[in-house]
Amino acid sequence: MGNTADTLIPAARLRAFMERVFEREGFSAPDASAIADVLMQADLFGIESHGAQRMMYYHRNIRSGSVDVHAEIETVRETPVSALLDGHFAMGQLCGVRAMELAIAKAKKTGVGVVCVRNSSHYGIAGYYPLMAAREGLCAFSMTNTGPIMVPTFGREMMLGTNPIAFCMPADPVPFWFDASTTVVTLGKVEVYDKREKPMPHGWTIDGEGRTATDASAMNASILSGGKGGILPLGGEGETTGGHKGYGLGIMVEALTGVLAQGLLSPDMQGAHGDHTSHFFLAFDPAMFGDPADIRAGMSRYLRMLRESERLPGCARIYTPGEKAHEAQERRLREGVPVEEKTLEELRIIAEELGLEAL
Amino acid sequence: MGNTADTLIPAARLRAFMERVFEREGFSAPDASAIADVLMQADLFGIESHGAQRMMYYHRNIRSGSVDVHAEIETVRETPVSALLDGHFAMGQLCGVRAMELAIAKAKKTGVGVVCVRNSSHYGIAGYYPLMAAREGLCAFSMTNTGPIMVPTFGREMMLGTNPIAFCMPADPVPFWFDASTTVVTLGKVEVYDKREKPMPHGWTIDGEGRTATDASAMNASILSGGKGGILPLGGEGETTGGHKGYGLGIMVEALTGVLAQGLLSPDMQGAHGDHTSHFFLAFDPAMFGDPADIRAGMSRYLRMLRESERLPGCARIYTPGEKAHEAQERRLREGVPVEEKTLEELRIIAEELGLEAL
Repeated sequence: MGNTADTLIPAARLRAFMERVFEREGFSAPDASAIADVLMQADLFGIESHGAQRMMYYHRNIRSGSVDVHAEIETVRETPVSALLDGHFAMGQLCGVRAMELAIAKAKKTGVGVVCVRNSSHYGIAGYYPLMAAREGLCAFSMTNTGPIMVPTFGREMMLGTNPIAFCMPADPVPFWFDASTTVVTLGKVEVYDKREKPMPHGWTIDGEGRTATDASAMNASILSGGKGGILPLGGEGETTGGHKGYGLGIMVEALTGVLAQGLLSPDMQGAHGDHTSHFFLAFDPAMFGDPADIRAGMSRYLRMLRESERLPGCARIYTPGEKAHEAQERRLREGVPVEEKTLEELRIIAEELGLEAL
Repeated sequence: MGNTADTLIPAARLRAFMERVFEREGFSAPDASAIADVLMQADLFGIESHGAQRMMYYHRNIRSGSVDVHAEIETVRETPVSALLDGHFAMGQLCGVRAMELAIAKAKKTGVGVVCVRNSSHYGIAGYYPLMAAREGLCAFSMTNTGPIMVPTFGREMMLGTNPIAFCMPADPVPFWFDASTTVVTLGKVEVYDKREKPMPHGWTIDGEGRTATDASAMNASILSGGKGGILPLGGEGETTGGHKGYGLGIMVEALTGVLAQGLLSPDMQGAHGDHTSHFFLAFDPAMFGDPADIRAGMSRYLRMLRESERLPGCARIYTPGEKAHEAQERRLREGVPVEEKTLEELRIIAEELGLEAL
């Protein structure tokens, strides 16, 4: 991740720029800071597709009115262990932070908090939110639907979103942090291959006839225009290598987000990102099951066992989820965040349109 | 899924035989019936690996004392939304049913129930338990760790179990019922290829050098003896097609079961099935988020959209999870349950050892 041609921008400078942009878009200072924090976390963790690279996408959505800067997030239903929020098309990050804060508060009080949100928008990396809970000693999930990009097993219409599952649990030296789409790859990966004009590996996407598609540019255009074919579920084509499992996990995420929150479903959304997404958050306190320090130590021990288990010949290292992200963060806080030329150009345009000083 | 050479046994007869066996093993009539119900559900759903085929496995575990017929399941900790049970090596099905009943009761009262169990044993199909909750109008998860069969991404030691995720949600005409291992395939699939002396497809397992292994007999022997190599995570080898996602999901299941319940972890267990497994159950009431009839209708509508979406050329049908199982059940209740010759022979041996009339 990160090209040698990328410019390294100090993290504090990039964050300050993002905050200025969102304030100028009309958000309050605390809201602008909250949104910037989610985007910065992606850039620091090395998930560039969801950081500064997405600024132009958010900028356009705000300008077009598909995201409402002045939306007031509404609590539709609430119990001591749950809530349903209606985002009224607020920024997804604000919906996500509000919902996870609520889930955390409920989990601290009752042991568990389950919060669903409908009529939200793209909320950045799914993993940001369970990390908020892990910092408070809790375990947590976050899921979201998105616009359609995934074909069902044996199907050729995009009927499911990226539909990631994120889960976080306290551990040392870094939390167990899992954040993965239920597709083989995300749309962001296809976009990267498109930008770099490289053929995609076999097994990522199929065309409308079910043939492996390796032309990233054609696939990206097809996905954005709602053509036939799309990204395969995790596990790949058909059922032999478990493609039906990724497909089933994708439906599960859609069930817990769009269906449960009674919002739009992925195939009802327009555009590959989806502007009217729904989210699911679940936080719980491990102290319900034992001494949280013991459980944390148990998790740390297991992750260490995995990392120290025997490697395949030629493989340098066995990772556990969260390690790469935290190592990227240390490096980027020290050396700066690599930003692509195309993204820098987009940030210049945004600054100009908003009458702001460039980055 | 059923060989032409299989004998069709009427479901009621098979169930009655199973109940007689478990009563003779020393279980009370209600316990024997509860265990048989889990096994029968697998056979009716067409998951033969977890039905009558497992009778010999349970029989041996009971005889060896690794499963304790007289164990009393203990409630170690409890809150209005949670419980931790210690199975004291009871039959996994009894632990599972008790835990899910508790989770259901809590969900009906407070909205959510989370129950963990440690020191259990093989509990049959993970999907049995969330189906109990769906029958009561609830949504539910069930997960379990097992003995080690999965290698980490870039690793060659089996460090994770089959680690299935099961989820069920009310829908019509049948519930959404998802039950899948976080590996490409289960050990049961390898065993079937071994029995039938067929080479396995590429991408299921690797040997200790990281080469694709297609010899099911050698792989099965290696897994049972704790050799190097093993079954790949869902998504396959390396990271290109998302193998690290299946690996991460597998760790997540281990975290929610063995770690949270403070039981044995997969690599600490002996044997591929694992006798000292831990489980995780979560049930919640969709009524917390809206009219449950509306949510059920929304789920049914989405599943119908998936089934009716355009098929790939040459593909006869798009399934949604739970359909195949419920269709198999209808057929098998009508025509009988197909049982392999080898399994019939095992049932004869069990009957003889217990002084019971044969099936």
